[in-house]
Amino acid sequence: MLTLNGVRPKSTLEISQLIQLGETTSEVFVNGAIHTVRDMGNVTFIVLRKSEGLLQCVVDHSSSTINMEPLKEGATLIVSGPVVKNEKAPNGIEVIVSHVEILSEPAEAMPIPIHKWKMNTTLETKLNLRPIALRNIRERAVFKIQEGLVRGYREFLFEQGFTEIRSPKIGSKGAEGGANIFKLDYFKKPAVLAQSPQFYKQMMVGVYDRVFEVAPVFRAEKHNTKRHLNEYTSLDFEMGYIDSFVDIMEMETGALQAMIKMLEKDYQKELKILGVTLPKVTDIPCVRFDEAKKMVSEKYQRTIRNPYDLEPEEEVLISKLFEEEYGADFVFVTHYPSKKRPFYAMEDPDDTTYTLSFDCLFRGMEITTGGQRIHDYKALMEKIERRGMTPEGMEHYLMAFKHGMPPHGGLGIGLERFTMKLLNEDNVRETTLFPRDLSRLEP
Amino acid sequence: MLTLNGVRPKSTLEISQLIQLGETTSEVFVNGAIHTVRDMGNVTFIVLRKSEGLLQCVVDHSSSTINMEPLKEGATLIVSGPVVKNEKAPNGIEVIVSHVEILSEPAEAMPIPIHKWKMNTTLETKLNLRPIALRNIRERAVFKIQEGLVRGYREFLFEQGFTEIRSPKIGSKGAEGGANIFKLDYFKKPAVLAQSPQFYKQMMVGVYDRVFEVAPVFRAEKHNTKRHLNEYTSLDFEMGYIDSFVDIMEMETGALQAMIKMLEKDYQKELKILGVTLPKVTDIPCVRFDEAKKMVSEKYQRTIRNPYDLEPEEEVLISKLFEEEYGADFVFVTHYPSKKRPFYAMEDPDDTTYTLSFDCLFRGMEITTGGQRIHDYKALMEKIERRGMTPEGMEHYLMAFKHGMPPHGGLGIGLERFTMKLLNEDNVRETTLFPRDLSRLEP
Repeated sequence: MLTLNGVRPKSTLEISQLIQLGETTSEVFVNGAIHTVRDMGNVTFIVLRKSEGLLQCVVDHSSSTINMEPLKEGATLIVSGPVVKNEKAPNGIEVIVSHVEILSEPAEAMPIPIHKWKMNTTLETKLNLRPIALRNIRERAVFKIQEGLVRGYREFLFEQGFTEIRSPKIGSKGAEGGANIFKLDYFKKPAVLAQSPQFYKQMMVGVYDRVFEVAPVFRAEKHNTKRHLNEYTSLDFEMGYIDSFVDIMEMETGALQAMIKMLEKDYQKELKILGVTLPKVTDIPCVRFDEAKKMVSEKYQRTIRNPYDLEPEEEVLISKLFEEEYGADFVFVTHYPSKKRPFYAMEDPDDTTYTLSFDCLFRGMEITTGGQRIHDYKALMEKIERRGMTPEGMEHYLMAFKHGMPPHGGLGIGLERFTMKLLNEDNVRETTLFPRDLSRLEP
Repeated sequence: MLTLNGVRPKSTLEISQLIQLGETTSEVFVNGAIHTVRDMGNVTFIVLRKSEGLLQCVVDHSSSTINMEPLKEGATLIVSGPVVKNEKAPNGIEVIVSHVEILSEPAEAMPIPIHKWKMNTTLETKLNLRPIALRNIRERAVFKIQEGLVRGYREFLFEQGFTEIRSPKIGSKGAEGGANIFKLDYFKKPAVLAQSPQFYKQMMVGVYDRVFEVAPVFRAEKHNTKRHLNEYTSLDFEMGYIDSFVDIMEMETGALQAMIKMLEKDYQKELKILGVTLPKVTDIPCVRFDEAKKMVSEKYQRTIRNPYDLEPEEEVLISKLFEEEYGADFVFVTHYPSKKRPFYAMEDPDDTTYTLSFDCLFRGMEITTGGQRIHDYKALMEKIERRGMTPEGMEHYLMAFKHGMPPHGGLGIGLERFTMKLLNEDNVRETTLFPRDLSRLEP
């Protein structure tokens, strides 16, 4: 009987293995998809696309009888032959093809030039053709960078004693409220999709002190802007026993540093492909909300229209100001007005018009909302009453407080938005694998 | 202006730091929630619950004037004082309390004895009181183990060259089909919740060769059994350029080994708390579906009622047989009948009644379904037609194949079910943080 003991080494080699191997006269086997075919008469260059990058393969027609007919863009195959150095080839090596085994052939030619460095197609076309457009080297590098950000985030929080949780995405009516909730039919009962893991991560602070979650959140917002999505990935954390809400911003600073470090360590290839300049993640300034509005109003001769909210343009100007005057890529804007924050936000005891909360702006855009939460049961119940809300439907959330909760707070980072600003893209759909918006449910 | 540079060391210490520090006459600061209070007359023992475990603190009334009134179960506080050795205390140390700072007080006493080793409450009660029931030391250990499984899974797949992806959970009508789909209203358009990332992970094989995802999936199944959930976490992967579907089972074997190794490395405390005996993850036997049915029928004198499906009892008996005869905790059952597998399953060229697919059984229960997929566009279109299905609504999925896909396959592991069997629980709700079933949408 066949018994299994884990992964056996493959007979085919990856690009990193070929680089390590260097020039060799013995035959190596490599698989891949045909990225381009260039017929030069005597020789044909076949560039294979592999997960680690591109590999040039050369068919010398003077010495080979390989049937070139099935060797079209999109075909997948295994080539074999010796490896030689060639400074002009990607990674400085190429395979002299002595044999080809076709694994699969495409049924139709590519409708877009995915083998080009820049495809020069509209975003709309790229999204419509997402399953194949992502095969482009630059497109796929975007989501490797995104992977790296999440890896850095998770590894840092594990080091800091956080526990990873998985909260449910389907819930009963109620939760945080508001109009931007997707509703569904749950066995004839009304249910909603989670706008955020807020209540769950707070409850879990009572269990593990520090928790985090990386998961999709759903917002039925009717904004069709360049920075809104109806489904996105939220990097959430929540931490107990904080001394002040500054602890939360410091934890985010540490996380951002770890995320950037992860990119520097394991994603140099993708950073180079996309020409990314990594941001400065030290000495991140903190400025009060009211103060920031005043500074921007003064420096850029701008009238403050709404003292209780930041307009997108103000976010841009705050970032600009702190970039110009402090060389800062990130800014924490603190003490948001109470009326703009949810009921569970902790008010500033010195002035309850404001809360012990913050947004993190990065290159002109909000990528994080966070703050300290009310942890005292009675204070929470009073706040609910003061807001004219009802505790109905929040019994489980309130249960955690009724039986004791430490001072705590946390935040949520929008992964796709952060990736967008990091890569200097201007539309969040560019950095969302399969975006969902008002008009897009496919692919 | 305040500028931030990451996490500063806290003035309070964690249990591992206290253990490292050992006995000390200088004052240390420790925060935590009161787990139990035991008044012994002259002294009171206060056990703090922290994320790393329990810490005993002693108030000596002969030398202290501490107000004991607010020191109730569920209060959170910071104690300070010297550390002494005490073999009877958890981790062999205790803090002699010289000072107490109360951080928060509960509003009501605990409705269940969460400080007990076993709470002896019904599952229903535990789930109703989940936010506080999880504070029990054994309950919370369950989800640390679950965290460890996911960490092991991810780290292994990263090592194996997989890319982590995030596919959308809201999709258009269509996808894999079937009756068990949750429907929702997406801005007046019909939409569904993802039953699985199947189509997306396959499409992404064309981009990165190997991909994985750890994310929630949604099944509107009307089964109210001990092993079904309507929302669960699926550990998915999909890999290209396979030589045969055995590659997929070998990759799973490697992943299972890494998951168990991760528990051995970083989760010894929780394994001990729950008394877990780790399974054997070497020499995992593979047996054909028809063969397995026959073996069980012969050994346990059981009539084969349905030759095309495995009944739960048969899964139990197959596991039993391979445990008894081969000492195996896991069994791969291969070559499931075509009629029981989705249209994209690759049929066995030697006998198209069966597919190149498998389930992985663990201690009597299916925890994984996987297999090779059809990668040729024409073959896929023929299969769709043969099944009387329509390609409508699958254009994007089919696009990937039209333009070339390598031979590939993958699987999905049910995280909560795997955790259940690993911990010898008999209801999957025990190992689901906040379960969703036919009757439960809360908490």
